[in-house]
Amino acid sequence: MIEQKAINTLRVLSVEAIAKAASGHPGMALGAAPIMHTLFTKVLNFNPKVDKWFNRDRFVMAAGHGSSLLYSCLHLVGVITMDDLKAFRSLNSITPGHPELHVTPCVDISSGPLGQGLAEAVGFALAESFLANKFNTETAKVVNHYTYALCGDGDMQEGATMESMSLAGHLGLNKLIVLYDSNDVQLDGDVAQATSDDTKKKMEAYNWNYLLVKDGNDTKDILVKIKKAQKSSKPTLIEIKTVIGIGAKQEGTCAVHGAPLPYEEVKAMRKALGGEEFSAEAEVYELYQGVQKNGCKKYRKWKRDIKQYKFENFEKYQEFEKIINNEFVVDFNTFAFKDDNKKATRVSSSEVLKWLGDKVPTLIGGTADLSCSTKAKVSGGFFSKSDRSARNIAFGVREHAMAGICNGMVSHGGLKVFCSGFFVFSDYMKPALRLAALMELPVIYVFSHDSIAVGEDGPTHQPIEQLTMLRSIPNFEVIRPADQFEMLAAWKIAMNSSNKPVALITSRQDLENVTYEKGLNNTIHGGYILSDFEKDIEAIIIASGSEVSLALEVQKKLALENRFVRVVSMPSLCLFEKQSTKYKESVLPKKISKRLVIEAGDAIHYYKYLGEKGKAYNINRFGKSAKASVLFKDYGFDSESILDFYKSM
Amino acid sequence: MIEQKAINTLRVLSVEAIAKAASGHPGMALGAAPIMHTLFTKVLNFNPKVDKWFNRDRFVMAAGHGSSLLYSCLHLVGVITMDDLKAFRSLNSITPGHPELHVTPCVDISSGPLGQGLAEAVGFALAESFLANKFNTETAKVVNHYTYALCGDGDMQEGATMESMSLAGHLGLNKLIVLYDSNDVQLDGDVAQATSDDTKKKMEAYNWNYLLVKDGNDTKDILVKIKKAQKSSKPTLIEIKTVIGIGAKQEGTCAVHGAPLPYEEVKAMRKALGGEEFSAEAEVYELYQGVQKNGCKKYRKWKRDIKQYKFENFEKYQEFEKIINNEFVVDFNTFAFKDDNKKATRVSSSEVLKWLGDKVPTLIGGTADLSCSTKAKVSGGFFSKSDRSARNIAFGVREHAMAGICNGMVSHGGLKVFCSGFFVFSDYMKPALRLAALMELPVIYVFSHDSIAVGEDGPTHQPIEQLTMLRSIPNFEVIRPADQFEMLAAWKIAMNSSNKPVALITSRQDLENVTYEKGLNNTIHGGYILSDFEKDIEAIIIASGSEVSLALEVQKKLALENRFVRVVSMPSLCLFEKQSTKYKESVLPKKISKRLVIEAGDAIHYYKYLGEKGKAYNINRFGKSAKASVLFKDYGFDSESILDFYKSM
Repeated sequence: MIEQKAINTLRVLSVEAIAKAASGHPGMALGAAPIMHTLFTKVLNFNPKVDKWFNRDRFVMAAGHGSSLLYSCLHLVGVITMDDLKAFRSLNSITPGHPELHVTPCVDISSGPLGQGLAEAVGFALAESFLANKFNTETAKVVNHYTYALCGDGDMQEGATMESMSLAGHLGLNKLIVLYDSNDVQLDGDVAQATSDDTKKKMEAYNWNYLLVKDGNDTKDILVKIKKAQKSSKPTLIEIKTVIGIGAKQEGTCAVHGAPLPYEEVKAMRKALGGEEFSAEAEVYELYQGVQKNGCKKYRKWKRDIKQYKFENFEKYQEFEKIINNEFVVDFNTFAFKDDNKKATRVSSSEVLKWLGDKVPTLIGGTADLSCSTKAKVSGGFFSKSDRSARNIAFGVREHAMAGICNGMVSHGGLKVFCSGFFVFSDYMKPALRLAALMELPVIYVFSHDSIAVGEDGPTHQPIEQLTMLRSIPNFEVIRPADQFEMLAAWKIAMNSSNKPVALITSRQDLENVTYEKGLNNTIHGGYILSDFEKDIEAIIIASGSEVSLALEVQKKLALENRFVRVVSMPSLCLFEKQSTKYKESVLPKKISKRLVIEAGDAIHYYKYLGEKGKAYNINRFGKSAKASVLFKDYGFDSESILDFYKSM
Repeated sequence: MIEQKAINTLRVLSVEAIAKAASGHPGMALGAAPIMHTLFTKVLNFNPKVDKWFNRDRFVMAAGHGSSLLYSCLHLVGVITMDDLKAFRSLNSITPGHPELHVTPCVDISSGPLGQGLAEAVGFALAESFLANKFNTETAKVVNHYTYALCGDGDMQEGATMESMSLAGHLGLNKLIVLYDSNDVQLDGDVAQATSDDTKKKMEAYNWNYLLVKDGNDTKDILVKIKKAQKSSKPTLIEIKTVIGIGAKQEGTCAVHGAPLPYEEVKAMRKALGGEEFSAEAEVYELYQGVQKNGCKKYRKWKRDIKQYKFENFEKYQEFEKIINNEFVVDFNTFAFKDDNKKATRVSSSEVLKWLGDKVPTLIGGTADLSCSTKAKVSGGFFSKSDRSARNIAFGVREHAMAGICNGMVSHGGLKVFCSGFFVFSDYMKPALRLAALMELPVIYVFSHDSIAVGEDGPTHQPIEQLTMLRSIPNFEVIRPADQFEMLAAWKIAMNSSNKPVALITSRQDLENVTYEKGLNNTIHGGYILSDFEKDIEAIIIASGSEVSLALEVQKKLALENRFVRVVSMPSLCLFEKQSTKYKESVLPKKISKRLVIEAGDAIHYYKYLGEKGKAYNINRFGKSAKASVLFKDYGFDSESILDFYKSM
């Protein structure tokens, strides 16, 4: 039977690729082949030739270690060549160890470590439901795809998965279908050794539809269950019982999970299938090329629908084109703050965000149950099962899922996405922040409650090392504005980012406005001369965020003693780093070697700019519970203490 | 009725403390007072006078924002004074915003941000079940306490909570009783806005016993359910329906969650109760002092039991005393590696750990489904429902819970605890790592699969910025050994740590042995001269871990050209930082200003020691999927490339 041959071809190609790479995970590739075969030949709507087709079904290979199987499918369908498959897991190939966005055509997102994939899938489904509601009309469904994910036993144990599932169930994201390759074996041995969750009950508790396929080789049953899931009013988990490494000598054990099969076994499998190594029969290709034709047909139909849409709803069509192509341009010059009063940057951020929300109809985001505190809200209510138009998402106390879901939403396309929480909770989101950076997704994070100035909630809620943590992530922007003017400039940077996540660090406490035009114009350079003297400068004081006004106070006090220092505001070290040597030298000239950095947090990154004589006046120990003003004094963050320190340098 | 008066006293004292602090969370303090009253007067076995009594019931205030309520209880029971209560949330008081270990007597652990408390509670219960099995006899139960936690709606939504619950159910930790203050309101509004989980079903799916108290003011029912839970063969969640901020004008809404009540309301509450501000009636004190007497009685009984135990099982008694007092001394000199072969530090770490496990009967730990890969195992099987003596815990793919549970286990006392995963997954554990550091808990982390040398699994599995992340946590030790000798020394440091978590960073790839006696003796100093010349030294090359052998190669090549450099091995920057200025100067003398750091990861922390002319040869971008050796070459981590770079400096 051709179908069985196709499935076995997937299996053999996968283990051959693994054998050639001498690295990979044959267990899932063998066990889950019938699932992937069913998905690729009978379910997924996509166009192998237009891999970024906006209305394609999205697919997340959550169990990313099953990559060889995905690549085998992509080969049969004509997306990647046999040479690509042979180059599995080798340098600069398009077939890396785990599926990666921007590396392989038709890979919608990087799987990341276990737990990320499910959150990403929820993000895809959420994006689809918002956009479908926004753009579809009675006659034209321009956004109406499903989101599929393939996950394994490990994924199911992750907290990020459970948070995501809980939210997806709550929001009734019924076009999300998760295929659970349930083989009862994980890396260290039997799943039963590590968990005894009742999956059905769990999914029902999360308001999901649960379906079971008892025999993972029964492709008919798999298809029946998928079709059923497509009609569900809830997201669906289809638990598919498979045998890990089926066909291998050690099938059903963890021995086949993550190490290549012995060469003889691979050879034997190939022999049973027939043909040369790394080959597939013509009829198998034909079967899969049917997919391609089918995909193209569907794509063309969608193109026609879009034409019709253009004809019937020209305005909507225009907006749709704009969002697809990410062409919303915001003129930040038309924004004005309510007033020039001292205010927390979480408040000035909120003013900007609300204004942006009114300008950009696809700006959507939310907080992990902290919108009253971080003030990250756009106009309108909360996105829900009954209101798909609202653009505030109540993520619940699910920080990790929030960040992962935002990755999915941005990767989906068509949306500008923000999310928000207390800065210290960025710890909870780290795995997903890293993935955003790796995937070059311009997610916007509003992290409020900066530094020990959080105050009474105490050390567990006061960020100390979080600035360092974020600054050290490659391709990740961190901006810590000093006042509302730098805040506005920071939002502009964030909104204009196309390939980088941006974190805006905002204060709980009020901050004086000190930067005005300078802040507005220079935040983009990361650091700039905020205040200077014509006279001989004896030192440079560098500061960011709430410490900029302190730096200015110290400068003033020194001036009274006829000692003159320059104050540099440094809202973003990452941006400053990228400036020309000339610009950097103009801000921090070599000849002025006395330098002091003031930052109410760990400031290790500044050492690059401190030289031999420079010092960091920062915080390297945990905070305490007290009023912010009391704490700042206690930790020496007042101009008198800093002045004393400066003089002792 | 005296009981109602006592409960109202807790409420009024709490809101008075909050009002005085002008900061705090009255909602839970009012709503959950009957629960805490019941716990403190009728359930908890503890001795207010001996707060570290080893066999006390453990209590975790998972919803740490309810701290004022806990402090009110601790006041009535005689642990803290009224002045302490008045000093709520003020600088250096023993009544900080969230309960903190080491700050307030009778506080067993820091609550941390939401989600941590449940994991900690599971850790307490796990420790108890292991120690009870190890030490109790038919006649003497020297370890037999319960673990209680009070959590709120927010806690229930956290992934770390769900991971922990899933594991606790799997392991059948039946002496864990979680009281869920279920008031349907969270910070941003109704819980229903963010979740619709079916709690009962969810808990049953996790193999928990679920009980419901419909009226949170019904202390009898609360007690009945707790008694029932105590007899359960599973861990129990008691969902207790309460009204947030009960008695306040805005009861039942999020307005009373996190902001002090208006002064008039506090006054009115006090008036209704009677008495002066910050006072309690004698009969209320009497009732609570009954607790104290009761606790003392139980404590004395336990002391008698211990005497009996000593008499009947002298050897066990001795071991028990040793573990209580943390007096297991290991003579590391008696350890010898199997051989001197090139080997991965994950392997040498594994040799040491196995040996340590045989020496220290209370060394216990596990991995998040990676023990085959990280090789962090002691002898014997997996800890389970049916085997409470095994010392390997199969945490499942639950990294975050693992780290939180370890905090609970160490904080419990009597155990030396390790846990392990891929280094890149330290991201998943960050919130709990931070708490370990803050609480000064000497948890040992074995993070294997260091740097891009992870190889084929690709960028999502290759740590880049993780060294920086860990190095920036205050009071957190990071050691990245160069070979098996530094590895052994690192384990010694980890085992001897009494107030600091220690992370051991181990390699997947084989590393040459290069440090021998020097590594054994000097790792404790963080950095040391590994190889030097009598002649004039032109530069210092600093390296850690897998790059130390590269540094030596470069040194050799330079020597052939009659250029002489010193090689400093720097397994731990944190430890080096703490050395005397003299020692640091001896290793890194000022006069040698040409310095090169080689590290296959982000090395920002070294800039402190690089001066004007120093350079970091490190990695600030994400990895790729390829063989480790190929990647090292591709990223320029070979002696030729480094030599070129050095010459260009």
